[in-house]
Amino acid sequence: MTDYGKFNSDDVGSFFRSPVREIFKRVDLNKIYSMAGGYPSADTFPLEDIRELSSVVIDKYGAKAFQYGATQGTPELREVISKRYGVPVGRVQVTTSSQQGIDVCTRVFVNPGEVILTSQPTYLGALQSFRSYRADVHGVAGGGYEAEIQKVLSEGKKIKFIYSIPDFQNPSGETLTLGEREEMVALARKYDFLIVEDSPYREIRYEGETLPTIYSLAPERTLHLGSFSKIFAPGFRLGWIIAAPELLDPIYVCKQSLDLCPPIFDQYLAAEFMDSGRLDANLARSREIYRAKRDVMLEALEENMPEGVSWTHPEGGLFLFLTLPEGFDVVDFYDKALDAGVAYVAGNFFRTDGLGRNTMRLNFSFMTAQRIREGVALLARLIKEELTIDKG
Amino acid sequence: MTDYGKFNSDDVGSFFRSPVREIFKRVDLNKIYSMAGGYPSADTFPLEDIRELSSVVIDKYGAKAFQYGATQGTPELREVISKRYGVPVGRVQVTTSSQQGIDVCTRVFVNPGEVILTSQPTYLGALQSFRSYRADVHGVAGGGYEAEIQKVLSEGKKIKFIYSIPDFQNPSGETLTLGEREEMVALARKYDFLIVEDSPYREIRYEGETLPTIYSLAPERTLHLGSFSKIFAPGFRLGWIIAAPELLDPIYVCKQSLDLCPPIFDQYLAAEFMDSGRLDANLARSREIYRAKRDVMLEALEENMPEGVSWTHPEGGLFLFLTLPEGFDVVDFYDKALDAGVAYVAGNFFRTDGLGRNTMRLNFSFMTAQRIREGVALLARLIKEELTIDKG
Repeated sequence: MTDYGKFNSDDVGSFFRSPVREIFKRVDLNKIYSMAGGYPSADTFPLEDIRELSSVVIDKYGAKAFQYGATQGTPELREVISKRYGVPVGRVQVTTSSQQGIDVCTRVFVNPGEVILTSQPTYLGALQSFRSYRADVHGVAGGGYEAEIQKVLSEGKKIKFIYSIPDFQNPSGETLTLGEREEMVALARKYDFLIVEDSPYREIRYEGETLPTIYSLAPERTLHLGSFSKIFAPGFRLGWIIAAPELLDPIYVCKQSLDLCPPIFDQYLAAEFMDSGRLDANLARSREIYRAKRDVMLEALEENMPEGVSWTHPEGGLFLFLTLPEGFDVVDFYDKALDAGVAYVAGNFFRTDGLGRNTMRLNFSFMTAQRIREGVALLARLIKEELTIDKG
Repeated sequence: MTDYGKFNSDDVGSFFRSPVREIFKRVDLNKIYSMAGGYPSADTFPLEDIRELSSVVIDKYGAKAFQYGATQGTPELREVISKRYGVPVGRVQVTTSSQQGIDVCTRVFVNPGEVILTSQPTYLGALQSFRSYRADVHGVAGGGYEAEIQKVLSEGKKIKFIYSIPDFQNPSGETLTLGEREEMVALARKYDFLIVEDSPYREIRYEGETLPTIYSLAPERTLHLGSFSKIFAPGFRLGWIIAAPELLDPIYVCKQSLDLCPPIFDQYLAAEFMDSGRLDANLARSREIYRAKRDVMLEALEENMPEGVSWTHPEGGLFLFLTLPEGFDVVDFYDKALDAGVAYVAGNFFRTDGLGRNTMRLNFSFMTAQRIREGVALLARLIKEELTIDKG
């Protein structure tokens, strides 16, 4: 049998491979200067806590920690999430990764051809999910949401939600101001659509003041997505959705057929980790680790990058975003950089319009400070060479 | 805001709640005689192995066991699955539960209105998933597949796959003969559709000879779904798909946006459990536990059930299927049984045609032998009463 394509559903035509995951297939991350992925630092994983908690969970819950469990998540984990974030338990749905949160929101709320608004650029994994359901994704640069909404509505299209990462956005590293959050909420209310607020980095803030979540401004129409990936460890694949029970109900029913329930042992480990105060202790340590790495990257950029290159100054999170002179093509440049041993993600992959080929996302959480310094210096040297060739 | 339904996608109209999970919400499973769920026996969970392996995995793999991992599954787990089942590693995709395997096959291969053939009755969680994508599900009783295929094709519909649980089927407990497997393969080749072979119970055989998998008869067009839920523990939410690389490729890309990768720590635990020989030791013990429970249930049925009631004699798995006299309505009877403290699942929930209201699924894996005896005796007494009332 050779023609397997005939078996595919129509959705498959809109699937696209993560270019980040394709990079990981080509190279061994530990052998190059990798600023490509969004991997947390291995230093932040509480290995000895996990070893100890594995035994604690087995002693405390026995077989229950390995049996099937509730589709909403274990009562214990929902309870500690509810307590930590000050929301009723009935508004907490545990997900098998916050990526699943994005995916299930798209599945449950969006028909093919319906519109999702996002910032421009935005998270690649969200774009993968949105497109896989054949949603009509409109990326909006700056604050131009209302103009875009009116254009979309005038074309007779239906807007289902805005997808936003308000804190230390992936890939830009930027944070929405309170005013921008309020404006987004006002638009959602005026034009009657939902907001999917993706908050994986919110608790990884290095400086500045914590701003209200969009959920807190519009709890009736916001689905707030949380993640254990950056505050515990990504290998557990655990996240949560906080939303009105009416919005969670179809998600709950959908999740029954998606995977029945989130991983149980992992949920008990996460609940114990959070409830025992270990999460806050580990988070304080992680913030210091990441802040230092960000500072090293900012310094190295300042020291090494040629004129005409600019970058964002994130107050938290794992990424910053670099803009090169107009005409520089980071996609063409990519093989040269990889051959020289340094990886980034081309900025155009985060956009809905294919532009931004003079931008790149740089991650500062994964490598050691020393390797960040070396990696940025190498990248800067290659960029300078490229700029000289272009002029020559 | 009151009208949340307007935000839903068209798929949501076809979602339906698992009646089994609704039962679990109503009653505390440990306080009634529960023959309703498909829960493995807590006695079979290797708690001390897991405690030890948690430390082994942390020592051996460190932070790697908690970082993001490959979408296909960890190389270590894919390798041991490949070795155990004698298939190339390139044909193994790890899934976040075998329920996800069912769901992703539907997502990737079936458009709304396209046909999936199943046995009649069949697994409820599969029906939930199929219907959630608005597939046209045709349940076929006995061996009538070819007649149904011709009928469906004559109506201009497209058949995408047969879904089959060949070993100790859920809910019937029945096993397809080699001839039936060969016939299914011949039909799939003749009419050019796929086969999704769901095999969660295959290694829980108590008697009789192991038959070839459907996959082994048609590796070019079968997606074989495996599960750790009955051979390790369901709380890990781990399964796998074995299939041609061409069929796995769209599943792999889809899984990137579904949840990026299966849980990593759990995958390392499963790989160590399997590779160290502990899985086989635990499986041998589990088979004895389950065989004894099945025998107790068969004996109790024989001793207690009135004339006119019949049941299947499964050679493995967790379930048997009871047929009551025509006219007996297990749905009407349900509240009476639950009030008296005994739970089952009504047989009609496993069908595509709503018939079978005189059948029920009984699980024998969850309760102790003593409670199985008491539960069956209680159920039989209630059925006798009901039959007397009906006659009176």
